[in-house]
Amino acid sequence: MRMVDIIEKKRDGLSLTPEEIRFVIKSYINDEIPDYQMSALLMSVYFQGMTPEETSVLTTAMAESGDQIDLSKIDGVKVDKHSTGGVGDTTTLILAPLVAAVGVPVAKMSGRGLGHTGGTIDKLEAVPGFHVEVSEQQFIDLVNKNKLAVVGQSGNLAPADKKLYSLRDVTATVNSIPLIASSIMSKKIAAGADAIVLDVKVGSGAFMKEMEGAQALASTMIAIGEQVGRKTAAVISDMNQPLGYAVGNALEVKEAIDTLKGCGPADLHELCLVLGSNMVVLAGKARNEIEARTMLEEAIANGKALEVFKTFLAAQGGDASVVDHPEKLPDSTFKVPVLSESDGFVEGIAADEIGTAAMLLGAGRATKDSVIDLSVGIVLHKKIGDEVKIDEPIATIHSNTEDVAVSARKIIQAYRFSNDQPPAVPLIKG
Amino acid sequence: MRMVDIIEKKRDGLSLTPEEIRFVIKSYINDEIPDYQMSALLMSVYFQGMTPEETSVLTTAMAESGDQIDLSKIDGVKVDKHSTGGVGDTTTLILAPLVAAVGVPVAKMSGRGLGHTGGTIDKLEAVPGFHVEVSEQQFIDLVNKNKLAVVGQSGNLAPADKKLYSLRDVTATVNSIPLIASSIMSKKIAAGADAIVLDVKVGSGAFMKEMEGAQALASTMIAIGEQVGRKTAAVISDMNQPLGYAVGNALEVKEAIDTLKGCGPADLHELCLVLGSNMVVLAGKARNEIEARTMLEEAIANGKALEVFKTFLAAQGGDASVVDHPEKLPDSTFKVPVLSESDGFVEGIAADEIGTAAMLLGAGRATKDSVIDLSVGIVLHKKIGDEVKIDEPIATIHSNTEDVAVSARKIIQAYRFSNDQPPAVPLIKG
Repeated sequence: MRMVDIIEKKRDGLSLTPEEIRFVIKSYINDEIPDYQMSALLMSVYFQGMTPEETSVLTTAMAESGDQIDLSKIDGVKVDKHSTGGVGDTTTLILAPLVAAVGVPVAKMSGRGLGHTGGTIDKLEAVPGFHVEVSEQQFIDLVNKNKLAVVGQSGNLAPADKKLYSLRDVTATVNSIPLIASSIMSKKIAAGADAIVLDVKVGSGAFMKEMEGAQALASTMIAIGEQVGRKTAAVISDMNQPLGYAVGNALEVKEAIDTLKGCGPADLHELCLVLGSNMVVLAGKARNEIEARTMLEEAIANGKALEVFKTFLAAQGGDASVVDHPEKLPDSTFKVPVLSESDGFVEGIAADEIGTAAMLLGAGRATKDSVIDLSVGIVLHKKIGDEVKIDEPIATIHSNTEDVAVSARKIIQAYRFSNDQPPAVPLIKG
Repeated sequence: MRMVDIIEKKRDGLSLTPEEIRFVIKSYINDEIPDYQMSALLMSVYFQGMTPEETSVLTTAMAESGDQIDLSKIDGVKVDKHSTGGVGDTTTLILAPLVAAVGVPVAKMSGRGLGHTGGTIDKLEAVPGFHVEVSEQQFIDLVNKNKLAVVGQSGNLAPADKKLYSLRDVTATVNSIPLIASSIMSKKIAAGADAIVLDVKVGSGAFMKEMEGAQALASTMIAIGEQVGRKTAAVISDMNQPLGYAVGNALEVKEAIDTLKGCGPADLHELCLVLGSNMVVLAGKARNEIEARTMLEEAIANGKALEVFKTFLAAQGGDASVVDHPEKLPDSTFKVPVLSESDGFVEGIAADEIGTAAMLLGAGRATKDSVIDLSVGIVLHKKIGDEVKIDEPIATIHSNTEDVAVSARKIIQAYRFSNDQPPAVPLIKG
């Protein structure tokens, strides 16, 4: 097989055979295909797309390019959740104990990674003493016992995806639905999930700005799941503003605790119930979403979800008393209100601008070597539809440096106002 | 300027600015843009095309990437000719002395290169003693005196095109009209031509299989010529069979001599008159093609063209007596007839198969280090429309090895027959 013939075939709109796709991934990982041929193939895929069969074979080839986690020693159907990225997205911290509370085993591998705030592990480390230094056996035992444990992600999970993504990033080939879908799914499959619930974000703060693209991405990922024998469901949710109010590590843990207590932000609460219901149904713990939702609402109301969260934190060395005493979480020195410079109704909040403002405060990593400040971040006070007067606080900056002018400016610029009350934006779009 | 933004712009179908195109070529030549980004851009160009303005800027940037030959010391309008490649294309050997005979200065730079047979210089070296080791000053003096001289091509002519072409070759991005057109024109412009006549081949043996592509390529090159101030004309000619009868170096020299004497193959004779007329008109030596054609026919009839050829050969050390005694040209040991295995009328002759058969005999270079055997090649006896009986010779192989089975098989496979006389194929198509 010659790579140039494979590029030509895809360029001309033909489908690649499974053998060809496997040859490409295997040779690329072994440095037998140079980057310049791979980028030509990626650009051809950008223009010509891939069939569901091609996309599934690509996903499997990437999943099989490195470690494949075996979760078979954990009882029950292991359901994983993936969000296509958003700002202030605290859902994992809430969903994990919530679905565990109704009997769905959650064996979560998480990363640290780059971004506006830290990854799930960074956020959990805001709880004093919490750590993810558990052996594979301990991890399995913990999930079997408590239905929930979190470990760090293997460095060798889907290395083909990692190598391809670096190349896509510098060759303008990121924005291709089969490439995005196979990238996400390959990691989830390698991480051993039996079933996957996807939260596809749509809106100004998301990768997919339009509903059409979000739907195509969702259905492509569902098709991959079907082809490779993993039950997959997708929810399309709004990202025309950050989810919840908090953006930051300790701040989001506090918001997650509030939500598990039943007093969190309405949008975050609702999204967790929708995603959680899908997870419970896929895990076979409820016959339909209505039944699953009732179970989850009950687990919040009767304190079971909060209890699971406490047990989980304690089992991994964390001080579970933070749940009842959130003041024990890391706190910043300065709290600086950001005052509105306009009158009107909030029409939209550029989520990525808010995220960047939080990162500048130290809440996230700009490069791999950045050190995260778990205590800092932003708490929004106004969201879409809220009326705002000039000089009214729209957000509070939590910072350990007094000068927050740059972040404050970004927050002000992130808000768009209109004179009339905008129509309510539905959170769940599909 | 960031290359990834430029790739994205082209990917999305936008036009690149002159600054962006110049940045790309300059940075690529200086190894500041990696191959993997360039190939992604090339594939985007493949899908999105380039405007006439973009193509002209690209051509100029590539022409200016290396040596630019100054022919201003040669009197008159220097007209160059380029063929988009074919098999048995001996036109240069005939055209050069033919148009020189009517006063058009021909300052020819030629290469050796790879291919079915050698380049123009290899072919001329079949004439004992002929060489191209002349200084720049001698070259200019020779053209001014005899209207014709040939030198080797500068190694540093349009190096950006050379580097790009190597990359296109392995990334399935050769077949793009703006890229083909700019590649051809950049070299002609760097070589100093005032005017350019293009012979665009169309048919099964050509790069462009269909008339539509050939027309698009021709008009793109004419547009580039207009944009950069070089008079440009294009002829579209048939390549559904090799041109003339001979494929090989000495064999083609002999065929060229025959044609200059007025007794060459009809198709080769006609194409030389058409291309030559265009060259004479562009050089300002005739008012129109009819007048030019009459001048050229006269130059053949009165022996002037042949005389110029002799003078030219002698001036560069060659034994001009080969013109009257072609038996002095290198001759092969074996002449093996290839017998037809079918009855019928010749419907088509796969020119590239005939070319490969010749290369296998040693007539061309498969790699840069291959040694050419100037004496070997193939002489066809039957062309489109000719009737053939089983066991009648369709060609003769000129070889220095006795076993010519592989080449003979290729020749037999190259011929397609039909039961009825096929309609005549016009040689000149546009």
